[in-house]
Amino acid sequence: MEPGTARIAVDLLGGDGAPAVVVDGALRAFNADPHLHLLLIGPPEAAGGFLDVLPPAARHRVTVRPAWAAGSVHDQPVRASLAETTVRAAAAAIADGTADALVSAGDTGATVTAAALVLGRWPGVRRPALVATMPAIKGPVVLLDVGGSVEASATTLSRHAALGAAYAAVAHAVPRPRVGLLSIGTETGKGDRARRAADPALADQPLPCDARYVGLVEGYDIALGERCDVVVTDGFTGNVLLKAIEGAYAMAGGPPANGGAPRAAALLGVAGTVVVCHGAARADDVASGIALAAHLHRRRAATAISTLLAVEPGRNHHTNNTEVTA
Amino acid sequence: MEPGTARIAVDLLGGDGAPAVVVDGALRAFNADPHLHLLLIGPPEAAGGFLDVLPPAARHRVTVRPAWAAGSVHDQPVRASLAETTVRAAAAAIADGTADALVSAGDTGATVTAAALVLGRWPGVRRPALVATMPAIKGPVVLLDVGGSVEASATTLSRHAALGAAYAAVAHAVPRPRVGLLSIGTETGKGDRARRAADPALADQPLPCDARYVGLVEGYDIALGERCDVVVTDGFTGNVLLKAIEGAYAMAGGPPANGGAPRAAALLGVAGTVVVCHGAARADDVASGIALAAHLHRRRAATAISTLLAVEPGRNHHTNNTEVTA
Repeated sequence: MEPGTARIAVDLLGGDGAPAVVVDGALRAFNADPHLHLLLIGPPEAAGGFLDVLPPAARHRVTVRPAWAAGSVHDQPVRASLAETTVRAAAAAIADGTADALVSAGDTGATVTAAALVLGRWPGVRRPALVATMPAIKGPVVLLDVGGSVEASATTLSRHAALGAAYAAVAHAVPRPRVGLLSIGTETGKGDRARRAADPALADQPLPCDARYVGLVEGYDIALGERCDVVVTDGFTGNVLLKAIEGAYAMAGGPPANGGAPRAAALLGVAGTVVVCHGAARADDVASGIALAAHLHRRRAATAISTLLAVEPGRNHHTNNTEVTA
Repeated sequence: MEPGTARIAVDLLGGDGAPAVVVDGALRAFNADPHLHLLLIGPPEAAGGFLDVLPPAARHRVTVRPAWAAGSVHDQPVRASLAETTVRAAAAAIADGTADALVSAGDTGATVTAAALVLGRWPGVRRPALVATMPAIKGPVVLLDVGGSVEASATTLSRHAALGAAYAAVAHAVPRPRVGLLSIGTETGKGDRARRAADPALADQPLPCDARYVGLVEGYDIALGERCDVVVTDGFTGNVLLKAIEGAYAMAGGPPANGGAPRAAALLGVAGTVVVCHGAARADDVASGIALAAHLHRRRAATAISTLLAVEPGRNHHTNNTEVTA
């Protein structure tokens, strides 16, 4: 474990099993990491279940911020409707300096909306991306987007390639990440309109961290990881893929020894460290989400990645943050 | 095995391991099914490897039709360029009554083009769909499209729902198939533009074979099969999904006991029985593709399904074959 205090705001009301599963997961993460501080955001009676089992010597690492409403898929992305949901309170805790990162297993859309509104987006990012890391045979494979946005466009895919390369280098210390574009074959010209437009664009596009574009890759490459370290796709495809792989592991009698489909993903493109857990997260999943948030904070990943993207090689600093409308 | 002679045209030059792997697979299928007749289409020297090992009593079940050019991804869908590739010769054998079905592990696009040009499409079908059957826990799950066409539209998704329902009922004897639309969540409104438009349309659309639409389903449901018998998606998503599941099984140490990701798929929408094998097919995969083609022929699946779609309940017979342009 890396050194350094990490103060994580936890949304006690996010997810199908909340608050019990979230409290259980938070306790596991808390007991595993002596430098972890938790800001529990939710009904005080739910947080009480956590505090009751803590040894007195550990109490100073836990704070409770009361909130009673869970974030909802119906939350509107306008400031006027900013009800004080748990996930918005968690984002506010980052904004006011009380927390270093937030973790929620609540509705992804509500979390993205809260994070974008309260923390702001990186320059040039219209829609943040969700990034999941697969434990493949030859090392981690970064898959994005897994649900941050759902419409594919060549512009978004190009942006994801840069984001994914920076994430692989910063979060997973992958040297010279190999970036592949997910399609239905590896020959040039394979794929739908968005892929056919993005493939030549990516071949010409400078990528951060000495990353290199390896061309089109296929579904196999996600779990196996032999051809690339970063798999770029749209949020619709990435989301159904991740869940299909999870279903396949369940069918095969369980995930491989080195870990199955991840159930926590990092949100990239907002000015803060935000981790989204699977809505059906179990306690272990919540714990791994909290550990991921602490890891990303300790690496200062959000700042490092946004800085890398702002000075992409070969691009003019003054224009590279203006996203082209697809 | 069902009774009845099945005469299958086999493209000896299709697939990465052709012709050796195809010859090996054809032999396995041939030895397993005494009512199987094969029309081997390719260079006579390749077919010779097959004939050399046959007992004389079985020779009457094998015919060779010479052809020297493999179908290519660059084949143009116009009659003027109809070179006599192996896959086009196979389609011609169906058209002239010499074969009941064709099997190719060659380029999918070339097979679809050849089949559509030589055999014709069903009325109202612009782009044939590729249908794969997953061996899920509670029975087969029909997944379509897995690569027949690659752009998602609500019209295509609705068409696939009807095709898939009929295929589940006819090919797999599934009573009252449950049809789900693959998306990123199960709540109404989840998904991209095509899914959000198709979901309410499917709720109102009559489906053949007493099939019923169960709403949005997720990636898990493909391998597990608990929520539906038919999973509807676009050909881009279905293709990468199928390969991702295959990769996940490889990572998990092998497919589950009841079978892994299928490596042969039926082409629906052309006037004939056409089975497409994975380009990286092994001999077993080719054999299973030939067995699938024989099964579909013995059930008269292509005719039965096209008839079911032409008289969908609640639709006007005279207008239902006019596909709306998306």
